[in-house]
Amino acid sequence: MADLRSDTVTKPTPGMREAMASAEVGDDVFGDDPTVNALEAHVAELFGHEAALFCPSGTMANQIALQLVVPPGGELLAGSDAHVVTYELGAAAALGGISTRTWPSWGAALDTDAILAMIRPPGYPSVPTRAIAVEQTHNLGGGGVIPLAALHRLREATFADLALHCDGARIWHAHVADGVPLFTYGQLFDTLSVCLSKGLGAPVGSLVVGSRDRIAQARIIRKRLGGGMRQAGILAAAGRYALDHHVKRLSQDHTRARRLAEALEPFGVVEVGAVRTNLVPLDLSKSRLDAPSLAAAAKEHGVLISAMLPRTARLVTHLDLTDDDIDQTITVLRSLLS
Amino acid sequence: MADLRSDTVTKPTPGMREAMASAEVGDDVFGDDPTVNALEAHVAELFGHEAALFCPSGTMANQIALQLVVPPGGELLAGSDAHVVTYELGAAAALGGISTRTWPSWGAALDTDAILAMIRPPGYPSVPTRAIAVEQTHNLGGGGVIPLAALHRLREATFADLALHCDGARIWHAHVADGVPLFTYGQLFDTLSVCLSKGLGAPVGSLVVGSRDRIAQARIIRKRLGGGMRQAGILAAAGRYALDHHVKRLSQDHTRARRLAEALEPFGVVEVGAVRTNLVPLDLSKSRLDAPSLAAAAKEHGVLISAMLPRTARLVTHLDLTDDDIDQTITVLRSLLS
Amino acid sequence: MADLRSDTVTKPTPGMREAMASAEVGDDVFGDDPTVNALEAHVAELFGHEAALFCPSGTMANQIALQLVVPPGGELLAGSDAHVVTYELGAAAALGGISTRTWPSWGAALDTDAILAMIRPPGYPSVPTRAIAVEQTHNLGGGGVIPLAALHRLREATFADLALHCDGARIWHAHVADGVPLFTYGQLFDTLSVCLSKGLGAPVGSLVVGSRDRIAQARIIRKRLGGGMRQAGILAAAGRYALDHHVKRLSQDHTRARRLAEALEPFGVVEVGAVRTNLVPLDLSKSRLDAPSLAAAAKEHGVLISAMLPRTARLVTHLDLTDDDIDQTITVLRSLLS
Amino acid sequence: MADLRSDTVTKPTPGMREAMASAEVGDDVFGDDPTVNALEAHVAELFGHEAALFCPSGTMANQIALQLVVPPGGELLAGSDAHVVTYELGAAAALGGISTRTWPSWGAALDTDAILAMIRPPGYPSVPTRAIAVEQTHNLGGGGVIPLAALHRLREATFADLALHCDGARIWHAHVADGVPLFTYGQLFDTLSVCLSKGLGAPVGSLVVGSRDRIAQARIIRKRLGGGMRQAGILAAAGRYALDHHVKRLSQDHTRARRLAEALEPFGVVEVGAVRTNLVPLDLSKSRLDAPSLAAAAKEHGVLISAMLPRTARLVTHLDLTDDDIDQTITVLRSLLS
Repeated sequence: MADLRSDTVTKPTPGMREAMASAEVGDDVFGDDPTVNALEAHVAELFGHEAALFCPSGTMANQIALQLVVPPGGELLAGSDAHVVTYELGAAAALGGISTRTWPSWGAALDTDAILAMIRPPGYPSVPTRAIAVEQTHNLGGGGVIPLAALHRLREATFADLALHCDGARIWHAHVADGVPLFTYGQLFDTLSVCLSKGLGAPVGSLVVGSRDRIAQARIIRKRLGGGMRQAGILAAAGRYALDHHVKRLSQDHTRARRLAEALEPFGVVEVGAVRTNLVPLDLSKSRLDAPSLAAAAKEHGVLISAMLPRTARLVTHLDLTDDDIDQTITVLRSLLS
Repeated sequence: MADLRSDTVTKPTPGMREAMASAEVGDDVFGDDPTVNALEAHVAELFGHEAALFCPSGTMANQIALQLVVPPGGELLAGSDAHVVTYELGAAAALGGISTRTWPSWGAALDTDAILAMIRPPGYPSVPTRAIAVEQTHNLGGGGVIPLAALHRLREATFADLALHCDGARIWHAHVADGVPLFTYGQLFDTLSVCLSKGLGAPVGSLVVGSRDRIAQARIIRKRLGGGMRQAGILAAAGRYALDHHVKRLSQDHTRARRLAEALEPFGVVEVGAVRTNLVPLDLSKSRLDAPSLAAAAKEHGVLISAMLPRTARLVTHLDLTDDDIDQTITVLRSLLS
Repeated sequence: MADLRSDTVTKPTPGMREAMASAEVGDDVFGDDPTVNALEAHVAELFGHEAALFCPSGTMANQIALQLVVPPGGELLAGSDAHVVTYELGAAAALGGISTRTWPSWGAALDTDAILAMIRPPGYPSVPTRAIAVEQTHNLGGGGVIPLAALHRLREATFADLALHCDGARIWHAHVADGVPLFTYGQLFDTLSVCLSKGLGAPVGSLVVGSRDRIAQARIIRKRLGGGMRQAGILAAAGRYALDHHVKRLSQDHTRARRLAEALEPFGVVEVGAVRTNLVPLDLSKSRLDAPSLAAAAKEHGVLISAMLPRTARLVTHLDLTDDDIDQTITVLRSLLS
Repeated sequence: MADLRSDTVTKPTPGMREAMASAEVGDDVFGDDPTVNALEAHVAELFGHEAALFCPSGTMANQIALQLVVPPGGELLAGSDAHVVTYELGAAAALGGISTRTWPSWGAALDTDAILAMIRPPGYPSVPTRAIAVEQTHNLGGGGVIPLAALHRLREATFADLALHCDGARIWHAHVADGVPLFTYGQLFDTLSVCLSKGLGAPVGSLVVGSRDRIAQARIIRKRLGGGMRQAGILAAAGRYALDHHVKRLSQDHTRARRLAEALEPFGVVEVGAVRTNLVPLDLSKSRLDAPSLAAAAKEHGVLISAMLPRTARLVTHLDLTDDDIDQTITVLRSLLS
């Protein structure tokens, strides 16, 4: 099977397994796991922040960050197609009491004027906006990269009680695609979540990044959510290995994604120019097949893809794929889409 | 003072006070208040629904309705400028765990195609859309009236697990402006909230309208929210009086609102064509004065208006205003805006 | 019908109706209702606090107070049979995220040593206790009055982050029964809720009492819960009338409750000594009839009583009862219990 | 350092590390991890249930189970000293809206009559009891084992809408101490949580156990809480190894705990008879030192213990301790307590 459903399907490499097998560990709920502590310090430093916290998933890292910056009944601005809005099962509202107002599905092409116009300042009877969340790269936005200028624009418009959060599950891809240092990204946000188990290939793990005070509070929220793990150093060792060995190679995934896009563009389901990183969204709004049908048909021919929404399918390139997998995928999808 | 801040400022008329003074009452938490029971039955019938429930505010009526149709972690679609999103202090998320995805600030001019495209059906990893809420007339949308055709379009697109809610705080104004029977509106929605203490002039009271089963559940939610009142018949009597005597006269408020709009249109803050009912929104985005400043200056000249957002002020006509109040308002605002 | 289900069933007296009919009102959401403002100031003064806030129910007043003193995830200590635990439909947890740890069903006979031993201070991995709530008089505790010494004991044990709340729905009865000034009670608590629509006979209304800062925050919580009413002065006028005319007369209700207890004590369902105010709990654990059966049978003979729990029924005396009602109740219950 | 703070501090053994290093894995959010799937099936079978779900912590496993059986606003009965009440940071209320009523701190010595008397059936104005949670063994109850007869008594008293949950973080210890088969325990409960990273020594992992329908719903809740991990098979492999190799050896931990108790009993801080498994609670209510002071002093002499509450310390035996560690602990504590 060529598995292009997600970059989360990657399996640990031999080197990564070795790192896990020999990891020094301790009880991380007591703050005693040296491998976790080192990873947290390292990631905080990469982004130029004071502290970071290891979490079992990107969803938890995002939700902790949102609870840090928006009180119950406060407002979060985010995209209508943001992961925090769409793929976290309503956690912001259900667990954090956070009210969300959304901008349209622009993906990474943010209309910053429109976003800034949405901000509701304190002092009015309306719900005050307490945070803006962006996603870098943008998952439902086809792996698009938000331009640095747009992020600067948002950063300049925030104020004491208005935080800027980055869902950076795939921020490494933006870093590689645009050559923007991670540190530069880090300085733009009050809180970030970053993920080691998507493109980087670690089995499990995301981190929340922020100030020392916020991360101290994050520890409490993580425990309440059930994210306190004990000898998490096993996982952190894999994460550190992934950071050290799997960032630069993402460019290969980007190249392969472009190859897929070039092959499928003639069928009117994707524009090559829009594919900047490792995600290839297929817009099936004018196709004979909807997303579940296409996914089911491809599976019969040995290719796994994701049905994200009724008319949106997604291909994802990652380190477990071979050139043959890409060839096979192109052959199968060409045949199904024609 | 000419008080145009809101139609909620109206004081009970002598007739209404008399109705309250002689109201037959009982303990409504026990279901024993005959005046409340009669009002609930009457309002349910007006809208062609099985049942209704009296509540202390429009916010509570809306929030009960939303909790009836969206479970914690489920998704509500609503306008970015909807009252349930903007002016209820995040209650849907904070109290109901309801996740909100919003369409842009269209006011009453709904782009139904765009709304329908936002629906996320069950069966995908995304948060399923469980309800759509519209507002008739639309408060931040300047009292605009959603056309019947748009509502029919939404109604046809809903399905078993996707409900349609109407925040009908000022549905009476739509009924008078467009001549659409209340019953017709009622048939379009699974749940409605309607308010007696805004344009209709009752001191306190809104109702949730819906099926018998839903209203039975609404009773539990109302008690949990602290909305169980005892001899509420005092208030219900005023509400019934308002329904019987103050609906038709709303046309006078609409006429006066148009007069205000005509007088202020030359200053570029409002378009007469957009003023359909009793609200006159002032768009101060190009004005010298922002909304709080204009409100403060007007107050010094005996005219009270509302600053809804930094650059949006609002005038509201209602039954406690006189022609002289309107004249004075025009004189004062003309002078301040020129 | 002799209605002894609750003191909430009382209907407004002619004098109270007149007070409502002539009440000066305004929009209380804007803070403009003079009658509400005067009532709030008056009640705050009665208890020696800075401020108070008018609410549509005792449940809302309690829940607002609890949200003021316990953050989401914080702990409240209360009795297992407290109104805030038993009769508010789980609102503290469902709306405020408040974790409750309860002491046994002692009613008003608090074991303060045991309560103080339950306090979990900050600085441990356990949930820190943020507030203790007591109920004066105690509803499920048969209208018992907590001795002043016990309250002093609790007060002395609290500290900066541990508040003391009083559910004072029937605190007037304690004041009359024990002769303790309301001001004295007020000084013992950080927050109180007091109710005008139970024994005092007003149709609707409770107040939260506390510091100026807390009540400012309470206004926001009240609006979120849907408790913002407009011309609430109608109700506040009745409440003020009740405060001015119906406090002293509560001793009559207490006398009648004792009469009921004396008549029913021989049947082993109540102890006269335990009946201190206007509630007469019937313990049916050894009776032929459970509470719903007894209530149903009594109803057939013109007497209404409440089934509070499967084996607990309750009689309540109040200002709408006559001596004949008491006689009839005694006759009917004697016959049913024998 | 002799680390007796918790059995969560154990580090993976060489065999366990090898199991992790060679584990076959997949994306568990997609249900594709064979090692996780096998572990879930195995644990379900051990307890005679249809299904199980792997979670990052015991807190998450408990909270998922509670959300499965108690709706927001529903009531949970549990001990005042239960882990779900005391050590999960208020999660039941804060995340699940679950209202808790607690029985006194009996530890494992449940007064089942008193518990059954606390149940509030549906059909009354009180909050209906939806679940009872017990803890086997009981952490704050000093590792006590609830007798089988007491559990049978509770089981017989439950009904359709009243579930029985077991926080079985250390149920293995009860199984070893009392010789009760895991299957027998399983049949007594609607839902269980069991933990692999406490006494069994796995680095990370707990499971919720229950019916197929409940576990399907649990998957949704787990994702919302952020507990969806990808190649979790790494952890599951360690968990399976722990189940296969570390259950029987718990008797050694029990023996050592008794040794500690025997040595410390003369100081009046523990009763040998109460120490049934691997926890040794120290009651310091009459000691010169409170729990944090004792823990700090012991640490200076190379012994780590936990301060659970101001006057309660705890020693825990586990597989990483040696007989020398036990000797050292006895020496140090004897010296500090005398």
